[in-house]
Amino acid sequence: MRTQLLRATGQQSNSVTDLLEDHDIRRTTAAIDTYINRYLDTDVGQPQELYDAAHHLIRAGGKRLRSLITVLTCELVGGSPEKALPVALAAELLQTASLIHDDIIDNERTRRGVPAVHRVFGVKMAIIAGDLLISQAVRILGEQGNPELLAIMGGNGARMCEGEAADMSVSPDRPEAFKKKQYLELVEKKTVSFLEESARMGAVVGGATESQKRALTEYARALGFAFQLRDDLLDIDSSMRTRTGRSRSSLELKRGNYVLIQALEMLTQEERAACLISLAEGRTGPAMRAIKATNAAELVQEAARDYVEQAKRALSGQPPEYIRLLGKLADFALVREQ
Amino acid sequence: MRTQLLRATGQQSNSVTDLLEDHDIRRTTAAIDTYINRYLDTDVGQPQELYDAAHHLIRAGGKRLRSLITVLTCELVGGSPEKALPVALAAELLQTASLIHDDIIDNERTRRGVPAVHRVFGVKMAIIAGDLLISQAVRILGEQGNPELLAIMGGNGARMCEGEAADMSVSPDRPEAFKKKQYLELVEKKTVSFLEESARMGAVVGGATESQKRALTEYARALGFAFQLRDDLLDIDSSMRTRTGRSRSSLELKRGNYVLIQALEMLTQEERAACLISLAEGRTGPAMRAIKATNAAELVQEAARDYVEQAKRALSGQPPEYIRLLGKLADFALVREQ
Repeated sequence: MRTQLLRATGQQSNSVTDLLEDHDIRRTTAAIDTYINRYLDTDVGQPQELYDAAHHLIRAGGKRLRSLITVLTCELVGGSPEKALPVALAAELLQTASLIHDDIIDNERTRRGVPAVHRVFGVKMAIIAGDLLISQAVRILGEQGNPELLAIMGGNGARMCEGEAADMSVSPDRPEAFKKKQYLELVEKKTVSFLEESARMGAVVGGATESQKRALTEYARALGFAFQLRDDLLDIDSSMRTRTGRSRSSLELKRGNYVLIQALEMLTQEERAACLISLAEGRTGPAMRAIKATNAAELVQEAARDYVEQAKRALSGQPPEYIRLLGKLADFALVREQ
Repeated sequence: MRTQLLRATGQQSNSVTDLLEDHDIRRTTAAIDTYINRYLDTDVGQPQELYDAAHHLIRAGGKRLRSLITVLTCELVGGSPEKALPVALAAELLQTASLIHDDIIDNERTRRGVPAVHRVFGVKMAIIAGDLLISQAVRILGEQGNPELLAIMGGNGARMCEGEAADMSVSPDRPEAFKKKQYLELVEKKTVSFLEESARMGAVVGGATESQKRALTEYARALGFAFQLRDDLLDIDSSMRTRTGRSRSSLELKRGNYVLIQALEMLTQEERAACLISLAEGRTGPAMRAIKATNAAELVQEAARDYVEQAKRALSGQPPEYIRLLGKLADFALVREQ
């Protein structure tokens, strides 16, 4: 059940259903799932526990959003889905590797509704499981015969590591990180780079022109920001409810969150300082009250909507069928509830 | 100062000097070091601490053995060193990433004479630093325009992860791991695969024929086993001495060691069981006494010598200059003291 916070954003969930029931999206998602499951069944080795740890989160599901972007951008530029599927698989393995390592670093308890990998298999096995997934992704991309894919993957991997490391040093004790500009720079490295990578790899493997690569990367970039803003809304919403087994919110983790930052911006300097001190001391109450009082959630949903419009504009001039599908994906960013 | 154990192997250190003073080896090593140092100087990003953590062990030195193999095998097949240097750099970054993650897993205190990365920068930063190095290696290899390099890297990475995970479950409580066959299978994944990769990447980037690739991989494979056996000898030797700040020995870590396994093989079933029970309980005395009583060190040095001969035989028919240089590298495996 949604709280007042998300209902206040005035969004309907119609376009979730719309996305999930779209024939083309369903067909593509089914093809991706089949391909991933066939891979998991053949990806065997010793010790078994290592492979179980590596597959744990992939089997738990996930939105397959990055895979969808890779396949759709490949098709948009005229490539066959068969070319995109191994690349989408590699992106899925990389994404999972980064989740496994991030969950160790953030000491997360759950992920995708199941216990985090290090909670089940231990920190040591989880580190190796992440490394195994990276190795497999590199091998799969290497086998595609297109070194540009690897240059993209490596460059984005480095950006993600920078983002993760920078995120570690965020703390309410250092208020400079709680500003929009600084926060969006972090988001760009941690979240946006991965969606850009998915789009760019799909475009490359499909044989895109430079101008198509630019347009599709721009689409993914704006979509990435929209996704993160919605993530931050869901995170704040979740911390307003009490539910056992949920992940700790960014407020509890003393991390940045765009909704919080939006609210802080609208406070007086004294209120802002008091709010950050409370967070540093582990008390989330003042921040939550500020978020409610400032209507920050609504403003952030508006900002996410702007990013979605920007994403759609980047598609201008592309084949109408794919403007429709990638547009649906973008709309989904605004209404998803997990 | 060497103990009786290593002097008993009857080796002189002449060929260490021989290797280090060889004009061609010195020139190649200097070119590698210059290339690596130039890379480190230009590999800048934020946060600075992440890059410091990633560079920590590379700056601490190391044998650059894998880099030497990559450059020499590339030159052997007619490739220019300029083609090999970026590949050698990538191999160095990968090797360092695996050391950083392994040291977390084994909770090592020191590496290459300096504190392990996680001891200086914390476990979390060390995990990300390893991931950053992998990303940089992938990017650099991707930029070489030869996807075969990445397929090799990914395949070997997966084998190394399997080796590291299998090693985690080794314990004197499970005596089946303390047999030569099982131990060498582990060594093949953990150590040998990396040297094979270095040789195969050098050969590939140099434009080798399939038969050359096979010969050079076979050379590196035998050399890898020789290296591990010598490593195990040095490890036992070190645990016979008392020195502050040294890494814990494989006996203390309750891990496999070829010298120990050689000694165990020569004991009665009862003695063997007693020795393993002591190790499981953290007492290394009985194992050390068994190693001395059975002359295991000498036998292991002999086995290492056999591997070195096998490595040299694999080079038969290659250009004499490179038979000489790679032969010196192989001889070095037998006498190195660190």
